[in-house]
Amino acid sequence: MSDQTWKTAITDISGGQIRLRGYDIADVMEHLSFSDVVYLILKGELPDNQQRRMMEAMLVSSIDHGPTPPSNLAARTVFSGGNPLNAAVAAGVLTIGDSHGGAIEQCARILQEWAKKEGTPEELARALVADMKQKGKRMPGYGHRIHKRDPRTVKMLEIAERIGYKGKIIELAVAIQDELERTSGRNLPLNVDGAIAAVISEMGFDWRLGKGFFIISRVPGLIAHVYEEWTREKTMRKLGPPPFEYDGPEPRKLS
Amino acid sequence: MSDQTWKTAITDISGGQIRLRGYDIADVMEHLSFSDVVYLILKGELPDNQQRRMMEAMLVSSIDHGPTPPSNLAARTVFSGGNPLNAAVAAGVLTIGDSHGGAIEQCARILQEWAKKEGTPEELARALVADMKQKGKRMPGYGHRIHKRDPRTVKMLEIAERIGYKGKIIELAVAIQDELERTSGRNLPLNVDGAIAAVISEMGFDWRLGKGFFIISRVPGLIAHVYEEWTREKTMRKLGPPPFEYDGPEPRKLS
Amino acid sequence: MSDQTWKTAITDISGGQIRLRGYDIADVMEHLSFSDVVYLILKGELPDNQQRRMMEAMLVSSIDHGPTPPSNLAARTVFSGGNPLNAAVAAGVLTIGDSHGGAIEQCARILQEWAKKEGTPEELARALVADMKQKGKRMPGYGHRIHKRDPRTVKMLEIAERIGYKGKIIELAVAIQDELERTSGRNLPLNVDGAIAAVISEMGFDWRLGKGFFIISRVPGLIAHVYEEWTREKTMRKLGPPPFEYDGPEPRKLS
Amino acid sequence: MSDQTWKTAITDISGGQIRLRGYDIADVMEHLSFSDVVYLILKGELPDNQQRRMMEAMLVSSIDHGPTPPSNLAARTVFSGGNPLNAAVAAGVLTIGDSHGGAIEQCARILQEWAKKEGTPEELARALVADMKQKGKRMPGYGHRIHKRDPRTVKMLEIAERIGYKGKIIELAVAIQDELERTSGRNLPLNVDGAIAAVISEMGFDWRLGKGFFIISRVPGLIAHVYEEWTREKTMRKLGPPPFEYDGPEPRKLS
Repeated sequence: MSDQTWKTAITDISGGQIRLRGYDIADVMEHLSFSDVVYLILKGELPDNQQRRMMEAMLVSSIDHGPTPPSNLAARTVFSGGNPLNAAVAAGVLTIGDSHGGAIEQCARILQEWAKKEGTPEELARALVADMKQKGKRMPGYGHRIHKRDPRTVKMLEIAERIGYKGKIIELAVAIQDELERTSGRNLPLNVDGAIAAVISEMGFDWRLGKGFFIISRVPGLIAHVYEEWTREKTMRKLGPPPFEYDGPEPRKLS
Repeated sequence: MSDQTWKTAITDISGGQIRLRGYDIADVMEHLSFSDVVYLILKGELPDNQQRRMMEAMLVSSIDHGPTPPSNLAARTVFSGGNPLNAAVAAGVLTIGDSHGGAIEQCARILQEWAKKEGTPEELARALVADMKQKGKRMPGYGHRIHKRDPRTVKMLEIAERIGYKGKIIELAVAIQDELERTSGRNLPLNVDGAIAAVISEMGFDWRLGKGFFIISRVPGLIAHVYEEWTREKTMRKLGPPPFEYDGPEPRKLS
Repeated sequence: MSDQTWKTAITDISGGQIRLRGYDIADVMEHLSFSDVVYLILKGELPDNQQRRMMEAMLVSSIDHGPTPPSNLAARTVFSGGNPLNAAVAAGVLTIGDSHGGAIEQCARILQEWAKKEGTPEELARALVADMKQKGKRMPGYGHRIHKRDPRTVKMLEIAERIGYKGKIIELAVAIQDELERTSGRNLPLNVDGAIAAVISEMGFDWRLGKGFFIISRVPGLIAHVYEEWTREKTMRKLGPPPFEYDGPEPRKLS
Repeated sequence: MSDQTWKTAITDISGGQIRLRGYDIADVMEHLSFSDVVYLILKGELPDNQQRRMMEAMLVSSIDHGPTPPSNLAARTVFSGGNPLNAAVAAGVLTIGDSHGGAIEQCARILQEWAKKEGTPEELARALVADMKQKGKRMPGYGHRIHKRDPRTVKMLEIAERIGYKGKIIELAVAIQDELERTSGRNLPLNVDGAIAAVISEMGFDWRLGKGFFIISRVPGLIAHVYEEWTREKTMRKLGPPPFEYDGPEPRKLS
């Protein structure tokens, strides 16, 4: 069926030689951190010092959020069914969909689109919030079911401020928070999804990579949970769900 | 069905507060690299400077190996079927089984078991290789289908040597290579799986985490390939397989 | 986190008792075929004799299509990485996305929407094909890369004709084929995805279940391929991909 | 990398022609039920009338068990994260591991091994139970956490008895139940996993296909649950887990 040659611009391999985006693997291992190489492999170029700092903070921020997220529940459930670690981690990654981490993608897409327009961040934020309201849509990347102010966002913005990495997109993201809270009178903080969306957009990454950054950050956390399940729990323990109530057809007979 | 309370020692969460292994997330984001926090979340404690250096080199080493590994083929195939990025990455992670990355787990288990015994690395290597030979088993973590000397292993060992991080387990891993090559007369280099097995064992990680380290390292590479598939290829392109030959029953009739 | 009670209308369970949609499992096992029970569990009610006949033909039709579909490639690749049968089957199911089997969902959605309108099947087909053409869209469920006339569709329609199960939706699906071929002058047969879409729509199933029927039908085929991989092949055999060509950055140095 | 030709004995495809195990797809759709074709594709040959009857009962028996099994929890959790139906079903299939459905494989392996030995079913059961006890192992396929007598097993054995399909392996499976209950004084009924193991072994299927039969049977149930989640629930609802208790390190400072 297939005799085509694949084309790829990521890694070139031959006997004894591995080059990532043109750089020899030995040089890369000598000089770059893992976080740098994540940047390199996804962007094709090396980060500068500000980008390096933001990448580290961003990847650290979402490494785990305790046992509550659905990705951890799915990963532990699959492991508990008597499956290998990689299958459990895969189930966790599978869970990271449009409603769990997907806000990064959606938020980045909107930020990237609006940042191209004319206007100050405040002007754009006003127009954007009004536009979303008119369309009856919720702005993804704002609000959190547990945190009033997400400590990860606070720290990410603080670092960006200190090192002078607040370009138009990060400022737009903050201005949207202020506008959302001003117009709604409610607590609608930029959450960690929104902060990651702003930072990767500022770095020039395509919004399509939004979920990818969250997955890279969260996979070590999933592995920690699977390993804890492995070493502390029995298989097929009662992981859930809560008691269920059947509300289908009453008992009936086949005629 | 479930009214038990889960116990976890990884992350504690409450409104406005996230603590990883006891450390506040804001402090962790301020002071630690992503690679450090991978170490922290899996080990429960912080790495020292030698361990930090080895972690970075190790995670960088396996981030990608071009389009040839089966995990990349599975990830691109799932994406090409018209599925989201996370589903494609999950398929890649699913592929990382006993025959693809699993050698890390198996090699680490053997190294950890043998390093507890009395004897110099050379003595242990001789006994181990003889024992494997007698049992008719292959030592996992040695030999490579493409590389005669794996450039990733060479660099990892060079860094370990330079910073003085060659404890008994790493020395045992190298001694096994020498013994395998001496007794077989063939090229059987410590490959990158074996090198990772040796390094994580030296750091005191449980062999059960072997596949986990490979997954953490490889996930960004999988994402780069899925993104390349997304942005450079059409869905349902001919990804494979090669032409097939049917050798089942001849055409026959239902009576 | 969770103290809600789940609600479900599918199956009620208590000690010694299992009821599917109200029917006792023992009665169901006594009187119904597997295909009947697939209908029951998804619809909530029993099929009549015509529906029973169509269900069997439909589920049989797509059970396998040789090693060429991407779902088989993904399943075999995951198994070949040294993973259990269920992980390999899961990878196959993961592949069944918008571009591989997804046409059933999309085609059923369109058929269900248009069948509600006034007009004969021929009138509706003319309007629908004109509408798609104007919007620059391709009608999903028509055309096949291997078969000029899909033998599965031919047989499904023949059975429907013979038993008198050609309601408005099936007639619309056939009329669309005729209209597509008349207006394009090309071979654009109703393929098996389109035929399944028409049959499940005629039965009153929600288009959202389209991919589900394909998955039910194909899973035994995936298992047959994984089992063949297990019993006839070595792990990590060369499953693909074809030779690749690197077209990224030229070799360069880290400064 | 790959220029080999694949070999397969399952399905032969060419333009306008599909043959399953040598039989033309149109004939197969005309004459066989879905359950028959599951048998055909996995065995290579057609079932006789007794085997047809047992296949239907067996596939029906395990189609669903309410929301409690971990595979349903994983499938609903993945869907709830904002993912497509196929990804959710894949997560359900992923969960079906050694501790959830895996008893079929393990039980079938033991039954197939012991049925080859000389002796009546009762003699073999005594020897087998004594052997397991001496090795400190539990016999897989016996006992149930909800049902004292599994109604699915009772019905499957009743049908086997009525149609005269009780060969040596099914009799051995029943004799083991009697011996386990006699020697332990506890309720240890042949459960549905054990019953499926006995029936497929009697039919001559390899134990390696044990999990496969369970997956085929359960996939429609998983789809019914995912569809119910889709149409009755909001995404990211609280699916679990129960409240958690953190028992890791006390709050501490990075020095």
